[in-house]
Amino acid sequence: MSPTPGTPQRRGRRPGAPDTRATILEAARASFAGRGFAGTTVRGVAAAAGVDAALVHHYFGTKDALFLAAMELPVDPRRVIAPAVAGGIDGAGERLLHAFLSLWDDPEISPVLVGIVRSALQPGGERLLTQGIVPVLLLPVGEALGIDHPEVRMPLVISQVAGLILTRYLVGLEPIASMPAEAVVATYAPVLQHFFTADLP
Amino acid sequence: MSPTPGTPQRRGRRPGAPDTRATILEAARASFAGRGFAGTTVRGVAAAAGVDAALVHHYFGTKDALFLAAMELPVDPRRVIAPAVAGGIDGAGERLLHAFLSLWDDPEISPVLVGIVRSALQPGGERLLTQGIVPVLLLPVGEALGIDHPEVRMPLVISQVAGLILTRYLVGLEPIASMPAEAVVATYAPVLQHFFTADLP
Repeated sequence: MSPTPGTPQRRGRRPGAPDTRATILEAARASFAGRGFAGTTVRGVAAAAGVDAALVHHYFGTKDALFLAAMELPVDPRRVIAPAVAGGIDGAGERLLHAFLSLWDDPEISPVLVGIVRSALQPGGERLLTQGIVPVLLLPVGEALGIDHPEVRMPLVISQVAGLILTRYLVGLEPIASMPAEAVVATYAPVLQHFFTADLP
Repeated sequence: MSPTPGTPQRRGRRPGAPDTRATILEAARASFAGRGFAGTTVRGVAAAAGVDAALVHHYFGTKDALFLAAMELPVDPRRVIAPAVAGGIDGAGERLLHAFLSLWDDPEISPVLVGIVRSALQPGGERLLTQGIVPVLLLPVGEALGIDHPEVRMPLVISQVAGLILTRYLVGLEPIASMPAEAVVATYAPVLQHFFTADLP
């Protein structure tokens, strides 16, 4: 859909609120980038933005939610992942890959995600992944699935999905780059399932 | 070992030869980066370096060898891979991972490889992988192993190894980053073996 000219004014309970929100997000991005996820506090972000911590909570909820908002994803990935996780361990690899592809194969969303991954791969950018995306977004997937040792198994899953991202979206390695979604699911679901359930070394 | 002061003079059949070699390598790097592997010819590199194509062949042999020389790897990876491939498909995943780790876990070699991968992940850098490393270095592994459809199976193998590189070496995701080599082999060998032999979608 193309944007319509003359979009209506933002709703807002008070004038200036969108600016406050943007100021908080900017302070949050600076803090997550500089101190990592673990080193960032809602109180610290509030102080840097010159607002009360309660206002940060009011706008964004938890630190996890603030982190996701600061990434400016076009969707909340937790909403996409939730149904894939709800079905339990049987077939989880397949359902998670479908959820993954519904985001990464979307031509509107994919470039944003590619940009985030490219940033995370720059020297110093790795904390976005190790201290942000993994604990906030991906470890909870393992916990929700009820797998044993999610802190080991989820990184293994991530290592395969990261390789898929790299070959399919970042470098365009054929035939992976042009593989139909169903073939991607069929190819990688057994690997994810293996990491969910196999004996750990 | 620390370098000894006053290293002996380079052997050389004629004065200026090392410079010629360096000039050819520089022209080769520029061509591989600008035109990709497929678009680069020994003749074109020779012309850009202002030398005869025969001299390029004399110094470097084939275009594949010129490509590997231009990457300035501290070792020729083909020499490391060869024994892993010689044993055939049984246990190939395990042997290839051992060969892989002998390079990537080497503190002298690893930073060079990380640098190459970071370059390949920059926009436009992907041809280093898709048109260079994959056809020159990795597809021949599949052919030497005698697997069917190496042009599909090797990219799948690469997608898992790329994810291992990304998590273990580029972003340092735990526990993969600190996993003993034997545990890495035990964890990923079944996945590689799966990609070598499983039904393709």
